[in-house]
Amino acid sequence: MKLYNYFRSSASFRVRIALALKGLAYEYVPVHLAKGEHKRPAFGDIAVEGLVPVLELDDGTRLSQSMAIIEYLDEVHPVPALVPADPIARARVRALAQVIACEIHPVNNLRVLKYLSHELKVDEQAKNTWYRHWVRTGLEAFERQLALGPTSTFCFGDTPTLADCCLVPQIFNARRFDTPLDGLPRTMAAFDACMALPAFQQAQPSACPDNEA
Amino acid sequence: MKLYNYFRSSASFRVRIALALKGLAYEYVPVHLAKGEHKRPAFGDIAVEGLVPVLELDDGTRLSQSMAIIEYLDEVHPVPALVPADPIARARVRALAQVIACEIHPVNNLRVLKYLSHELKVDEQAKNTWYRHWVRTGLEAFERQLALGPTSTFCFGDTPTLADCCLVPQIFNARRFDTPLDGLPRTMAAFDACMALPAFQQAQPSACPDNEA
Repeated sequence: MKLYNYFRSSASFRVRIALALKGLAYEYVPVHLAKGEHKRPAFGDIAVEGLVPVLELDDGTRLSQSMAIIEYLDEVHPVPALVPADPIARARVRALAQVIACEIHPVNNLRVLKYLSHELKVDEQAKNTWYRHWVRTGLEAFERQLALGPTSTFCFGDTPTLADCCLVPQIFNARRFDTPLDGLPRTMAAFDACMALPAFQQAQPSACPDNEA
Repeated sequence: MKLYNYFRSSASFRVRIALALKGLAYEYVPVHLAKGEHKRPAFGDIAVEGLVPVLELDDGTRLSQSMAIIEYLDEVHPVPALVPADPIARARVRALAQVIACEIHPVNNLRVLKYLSHELKVDEQAKNTWYRHWVRTGLEAFERQLALGPTSTFCFGDTPTLADCCLVPQIFNARRFDTPLDGLPRTMAAFDACMALPAFQQAQPSACPDNEA
């Protein structure tokens, strides 16, 4: 398998975590978003949406959208499971993942921030306030969702799930933009539990071959 | 079952379609987003995220996030299937749904538009341009994704799927904001095929009890 991705892309990071948790080997193909490599024709042929991540299977089939990729990986490589077996539990894990993937992340991704700066002439400070507002609002909703469930080591239960694959990159992004993370005890406990695992360590931006730090 | 929802909410509309396609009866509980009913304490007790839709099961369990709800419905009421059986096909359907649910809709929902107007003082014209920009960009990506697959009546294959549940409300929204929909032949053909079905007709905003038109 090949993963077209970018060290700092949080959707890429989600898939890297899933691959690492499942112990699956893959070729890391960097696509430098900040340099606009995702807009070049060569990448357009690979990713019709012009977005990372794209997972290319050994037969050449290409899959897009991080949550769809992770569900695919979970179906064809079911151990360890990233989505639980019970339908209600599955719905809870997916809802947690979607609070991040559908409520927080899309409003704050690179192209939206660029539109704010270039088209709407929003200054740097107001852009950062925007960023922190959506992260904070979303993580507070995430915390309330977690608080509905029983105590757990990770977002749901005692092993990492799709929800943790989404949470961890979002916390990395929140920190990059100095978003306050106080008052989110369940959320941050799940984050800390994840970061104690080698899979999350291996997948993080600073461990990527295209990391620039 | 009870569905807490709003006639014009496109995430609510997705779930109404799924319920109608499966022929499942439910109590329609309107939550008037434009009047801020979702921010009142009574609804906060029901929906910790303060968002619609919320599906309340007969035992009181509440599920949030439209795509998680639809996958749940598909698991417990598998006929007709809204997600195909093959893992690659499942990934394609989910990716199509996510192009809409993760790339287009979140950037254009009511609270984001309100933030643009109230916090960033973006005028009506620029706000509408923003709206149409993300819808158009997203639908063009959606069209390119559809074009990768074989000809089909709906977004994927010859029966409606999760992807169609997401597409149809997005096209309704696009039209409300006068977004050009030319040059999207596969997308609009799938939309038209959906709207020829009673389930999509029943679920549309104008057929809802809280519709104000």
